[in-house]
Amino acid sequence: MESLQIHKEGNNCVIHIIDQRFLPFELITEALKTEDDCLMAIRDMHVRGAPLIGVTAAFGVYLGLLHCREAGYDLCCDTVVRKLATARPTAVNLFHALEFIKDTVRKEPREEAKPEAAFRAACTLMEREISACRSIGENGLPLIEEASRLKKGRPVNILTHCNAGWLACIRYGTATAPVYLAHEKGIPVHVWVDETRPLNQGSRLTAWELEQAGVPYTVITDNAGGYLMQKGLVDMVIVGSDRVCMNGDIANKTGTYLKALAASDNRIPFYVAFPSSTIDPMLESGKTIPIEERSPDEVHFITGFGEGFLQKVRITPFPSEANNPAFDITPARLITAFITERGVCRPHRKDILRLFPEIA
Amino acid sequence: MESLQIHKEGNNCVIHIIDQRFLPFELITEALKTEDDCLMAIRDMHVRGAPLIGVTAAFGVYLGLLHCREAGYDLCCDTVVRKLATARPTAVNLFHALEFIKDTVRKEPREEAKPEAAFRAACTLMEREISACRSIGENGLPLIEEASRLKKGRPVNILTHCNAGWLACIRYGTATAPVYLAHEKGIPVHVWVDETRPLNQGSRLTAWELEQAGVPYTVITDNAGGYLMQKGLVDMVIVGSDRVCMNGDIANKTGTYLKALAASDNRIPFYVAFPSSTIDPMLESGKTIPIEERSPDEVHFITGFGEGFLQKVRITPFPSEANNPAFDITPARLITAFITERGVCRPHRKDILRLFPEIA
Repeated sequence: MESLQIHKEGNNCVIHIIDQRFLPFELITEALKTEDDCLMAIRDMHVRGAPLIGVTAAFGVYLGLLHCREAGYDLCCDTVVRKLATARPTAVNLFHALEFIKDTVRKEPREEAKPEAAFRAACTLMEREISACRSIGENGLPLIEEASRLKKGRPVNILTHCNAGWLACIRYGTATAPVYLAHEKGIPVHVWVDETRPLNQGSRLTAWELEQAGVPYTVITDNAGGYLMQKGLVDMVIVGSDRVCMNGDIANKTGTYLKALAASDNRIPFYVAFPSSTIDPMLESGKTIPIEERSPDEVHFITGFGEGFLQKVRITPFPSEANNPAFDITPARLITAFITERGVCRPHRKDILRLFPEIA
Repeated sequence: MESLQIHKEGNNCVIHIIDQRFLPFELITEALKTEDDCLMAIRDMHVRGAPLIGVTAAFGVYLGLLHCREAGYDLCCDTVVRKLATARPTAVNLFHALEFIKDTVRKEPREEAKPEAAFRAACTLMEREISACRSIGENGLPLIEEASRLKKGRPVNILTHCNAGWLACIRYGTATAPVYLAHEKGIPVHVWVDETRPLNQGSRLTAWELEQAGVPYTVITDNAGGYLMQKGLVDMVIVGSDRVCMNGDIANKTGTYLKALAASDNRIPFYVAFPSSTIDPMLESGKTIPIEERSPDEVHFITGFGEGFLQKVRITPFPSEANNPAFDITPARLITAFITERGVCRPHRKDILRLFPEIA
């Protein structure tokens, strides 16, 4: 399963995505044809998840160049990149992707070849993300295998927050990749799926993904994970990330920090799985990660399925105020290890640089 | 405002409650006329909150005696008490209340006076809960006043989880009592209201209560509290409790433990407010508190207001499983202090017994 597909014939190019707002009740695909389509799809969260945001934006730049009316592709590219960079603030993959495409376009000496160069760069980026996720799965698998040995074959209970599955990452996913590989290998696993309010990416997207793949799972409220850990019903936590700092602090969907605290308090391993595109070499610590404040309406309203339709209902008193920070910071001290495409490492600067010396 | 009112003329008695399932969108009152009405109201959560559960059950025993057809009130009382004790398992107030009424009935020597004795005992219990909440408010107020002094008059930001307001406690509430008194005294306060999935007693009930009282508040998802604490936007946490153990561990609505961890990690005071009827002298530690598992449907479905009606919508994939523990345990080490009707104390056996020597 893939969360994004490219259809290109000559200068006709359409990016097919799943409009994830309607899952799990409706599987609606959408065709993105312009950079504005891509901007809207990212901003309004038809697509989400750090790797997928980056790849969608990358193809958005290419679509922008296709419709370039300004004098020169470089100038046009700058404009499109600036526009797409405003789509969402927290996932660094977005900025890495845009930077990569801009660099490629700038370095292509032949003016007429610049759009194709952008396209190839976006494809490269996408292939890298897919391959990184596959490797994350392979590198994380031994952690589940080891837990399975300790549990003598009883199911390994893995808690995850939000959706860091293939819906967030083109294919395999980050946090889910080791789970999918373990399941394929016949290792008994069971996933506790945090609902992940306010947009319910856990109960809507992760649950749907696991259902498709036949992986046993149970949906829980965001409040319940601590209790399950207290009762010994969680063997490990694996989450994704939207931005990783050089000191090992990470940003991920709000509520991740609470689960990391509970895991630490109950001596349960807490893993963060991400491709290197999520590392921000410019950020020394989590304190400076820009945290997106999203619309209070995401708290006031919830969308669900009732009487045969998708319906949006209000769940707060009419005059009430709401606040909606989309991410929080999990400090390195609460993280057992990172699972990356080049292996597993401790959440420390030195260990990150040992795996990824090129970002020093 | 009161969450329960008694109307009695001779042997005609009706208990008026608010059916809290429909708040904040509809204010529906309900008349309980039999012990079965009371059982259903507690079990199906028309009423909830440890003190209110206890008082409703107490009047339920009286209503049961009124309709007694068995040989003798003592026997009848035993039957009704046994039945009502099954209503919900975690709040110890229920068992304390039932025990108190049973004792009173048994000790009343005149057979024909036993129902009235039960009634008077239930009234006494209710008056005690109201008076305890008022005292909790007075004893907690200095903590808010001190925080206000430290903040030089800027609003004191108080985070609360679930509803421990007057809707849970006849009048004043437990966690909210100091907040209401501070607000009445003109001390600027602002409450972060945890949504409290799955039944949203925060966004539905606490928000509605604060709205009625004119106390400034903001609804947040259960996931957001940790982030707000990281950012210095929470000055203290005050929650209620459903059962307090002699070692200072407490049970409260699932997710309380996660907020206590975050408060501790950010050095924010974490207070638990409760009347002594919530203390369980039989329980040495939180490990043995019976935790209620409620229906998975509370996770699968959510009720909100849409197109002019209350609607129930599904928010998980149709074939999915869900798990729904209603409470979790917050260990004493994460609690700054208890706020009780006899004063503020550390969450330790010795300190509890100093305030309440009679429970030794």
